[in-house]
Amino acid sequence: MTDPEIQDIQTYMTDLGGRARAASRRLARASTAAKNAALLAIAERLDAERAAIAAANRHDLEAGAAKGLDAALLDRLELTPGRIDAMIEGVRQVAALPDPVGAITDLDYRPSGIQVGRMRVPLGVVGIIYESRPNVTADAAALCLKSGNATVLRGGSEAFASNQAIARCIQAGLASAGLPEDGVQVVATTDRAAVGAMITMPESIDVIIPRGGKGLIERISREARVPVIKHLDGICHVYIDEHADLDKAFAIAMNAKTQRYGTCNTMETLLVDAPVAAAILPRLGAAYREKGVELRGCPQTRELIADAIPATDEDWDTEYLAPILSIRVVEGLDAAMDHIARHGSAHTDAIVTEDYSRARRFLREVDSSSVMVNASTRFADGFEYGLGAEIGISTDKFHARGPVGLEGLTSVKFVVLGDGEVRG
Amino acid sequence: MTDPEIQDIQTYMTDLGGRARAASRRLARASTAAKNAALLAIAERLDAERAAIAAANRHDLEAGAAKGLDAALLDRLELTPGRIDAMIEGVRQVAALPDPVGAITDLDYRPSGIQVGRMRVPLGVVGIIYESRPNVTADAAALCLKSGNATVLRGGSEAFASNQAIARCIQAGLASAGLPEDGVQVVATTDRAAVGAMITMPESIDVIIPRGGKGLIERISREARVPVIKHLDGICHVYIDEHADLDKAFAIAMNAKTQRYGTCNTMETLLVDAPVAAAILPRLGAAYREKGVELRGCPQTRELIADAIPATDEDWDTEYLAPILSIRVVEGLDAAMDHIARHGSAHTDAIVTEDYSRARRFLREVDSSSVMVNASTRFADGFEYGLGAEIGISTDKFHARGPVGLEGLTSVKFVVLGDGEVRG
Repeated sequence: MTDPEIQDIQTYMTDLGGRARAASRRLARASTAAKNAALLAIAERLDAERAAIAAANRHDLEAGAAKGLDAALLDRLELTPGRIDAMIEGVRQVAALPDPVGAITDLDYRPSGIQVGRMRVPLGVVGIIYESRPNVTADAAALCLKSGNATVLRGGSEAFASNQAIARCIQAGLASAGLPEDGVQVVATTDRAAVGAMITMPESIDVIIPRGGKGLIERISREARVPVIKHLDGICHVYIDEHADLDKAFAIAMNAKTQRYGTCNTMETLLVDAPVAAAILPRLGAAYREKGVELRGCPQTRELIADAIPATDEDWDTEYLAPILSIRVVEGLDAAMDHIARHGSAHTDAIVTEDYSRARRFLREVDSSSVMVNASTRFADGFEYGLGAEIGISTDKFHARGPVGLEGLTSVKFVVLGDGEVRG
Repeated sequence: MTDPEIQDIQTYMTDLGGRARAASRRLARASTAAKNAALLAIAERLDAERAAIAAANRHDLEAGAAKGLDAALLDRLELTPGRIDAMIEGVRQVAALPDPVGAITDLDYRPSGIQVGRMRVPLGVVGIIYESRPNVTADAAALCLKSGNATVLRGGSEAFASNQAIARCIQAGLASAGLPEDGVQVVATTDRAAVGAMITMPESIDVIIPRGGKGLIERISREARVPVIKHLDGICHVYIDEHADLDKAFAIAMNAKTQRYGTCNTMETLLVDAPVAAAILPRLGAAYREKGVELRGCPQTRELIADAIPATDEDWDTEYLAPILSIRVVEGLDAAMDHIARHGSAHTDAIVTEDYSRARRFLREVDSSSVMVNASTRFADGFEYGLGAEIGISTDKFHARGPVGLEGLTSVKFVVLGDGEVRG
């Protein structure tokens, strides 16, 4: 679909990008009060326009069903009244978060007499490319607005009408607070050329955040001419060490796998130190069986859990996002960390141990965005970490790593306060 | 030139990258003591091998002269005894800097009972592509080593022998401290294909830092498949506000232009608020004339400085790196900030004013890596800011901005300490 007023995609995107850049300058200097007023006005408008949003969403759902979209995709696309509530509440919560922009830290005097500090500043224009869930439109716009950035949003074609309906509420909210409507723009075409344009306009868009399947993210990363904050796999591990408290190990291994199956911070591989394998694996095997989790084990695991099927080499590299778990018995901490370095995805990995030195080594040496001692991998989340809402979890090392909240949407500049100092 | 043992550039680079990746894991967990021992051993070895380094450098200089390199390039290439001293002293200074790796900040308890903090970690493998100055080999290797990163260095073809001689000292120093020699590798070929390989090996190199001319940096940024920390132009401004202390304004405007002409933080354009133009410009004009600075002015400037030549539109966008200054009279703070937004390069910009609200607006609204009040732009420098040595000044917003020291060569990961907590 394409707004009938759009004649040429490249011209449209260049114009849209230029307006985003202009709006970003105004948003960067907007007061906290104005940004919060806009967020609350957006929440109110979304509430007032529930019927229009639901109607647009029904239109998308019917078109999707007619196109033969599968049930899981239609479910992600649907805006139930409860999901609209959650979307509105999410925007209100962002209004309540502290404003990171303009904060100055480390303002220290230098021997020359100048005072040097760092001020937190917006990134500029954030481009977000996402798939079916239309609530991302409001979530992402709210986080970018609070952090002083302009946003260009490009949602999935199946959610076109829903996203446009939400966008109208956002722009009305911005206008009512005296902020530029161009501060949040939703691309009004599903033509793929619009994505190609978005990721190659460094003069208009400073960073791209893709959200969706691995194929989308890999393609965007490969072709982008601007920085990308991305999340690829979540192949998360729990390692139960010889010196683990086995009750903690049991609770963590169960929670990390079974609390939710489809999330990126769910454990996909359990590593067990050989000396405690016999003491913990039969108990865990029975509990997983009760939850209906399919187990795939190394030979030693299968001696202790009779109904585990053999794990193949591919299993160690697989993010199941399903009630399936691979289990491997390893010989000590180094073997566990080697396995994680070779097969992990640098997302979230945990050790269960009461041994101080092993905990300390695991924290230092495992190179993942979240590294945990005696806690469930499911805690890797912006809310649980106290960041407020998150725009995603970065598995990159550059700029932002782990859950990305308001701070990840900002940069810092140096500020220098002097009294006429010159350099000698 | 190419080491005769190299058969195929792509195979050579892939192998070199793989060894850098392996070494980076060992360097990431190396102790501060081991890294400092290696740095001091490198300094000693450079000192002991002065004759060999000087001989290699003479070889490069003779080859360069025979090829007809210009005098400025030959000067940058030369390693005088004083420059070798400075290179050795630079390595010792990096040993004395605090180690950023492993530092944990903000370790706070969350309502769930877990404690969440951030640990500073190396980026991994840093690729550095540079031109004639061979001292960069030692400077960059030292900063990357201290920050726990492996390094792949690719210097200019004209400095090939000098760089290889320095590299041998670095590798001997690493080995003597029990650290992997592959932690610092200097590419042993001047074939351009090696650069193409370096910037497209995300599996082996995590970030590229190009140092050199604008053409080199633009080409690398365009073609790289990994993040680039880069510095393009330094078109720096000083704005003398209506409410400036004119003695401070005079001192800053003179220092920012004339203390050194060829540095990126040198002022290239002076903006003067109309109400004080007549009071300050004739005095500045006379002083610049005495220093031999060519002045290019707007019409109002030329009414006050008779010998200023007319500035063209191109002047406002030019980094002279020379005793040339463009001067423009503007109508107030907003006009000054508009000029900087339109023509600046987001490097370093300063206001001279005694007006509190204008200083505060300038600090917040000017979007440059360093923003100053009543101080010379020449202070934009890692040493002056207290970062220790710098690997460059980033004009990007992403990841690192402004002078990049040890911290800019690191990332952070989340660490979670629990006592068996699970997510509810």
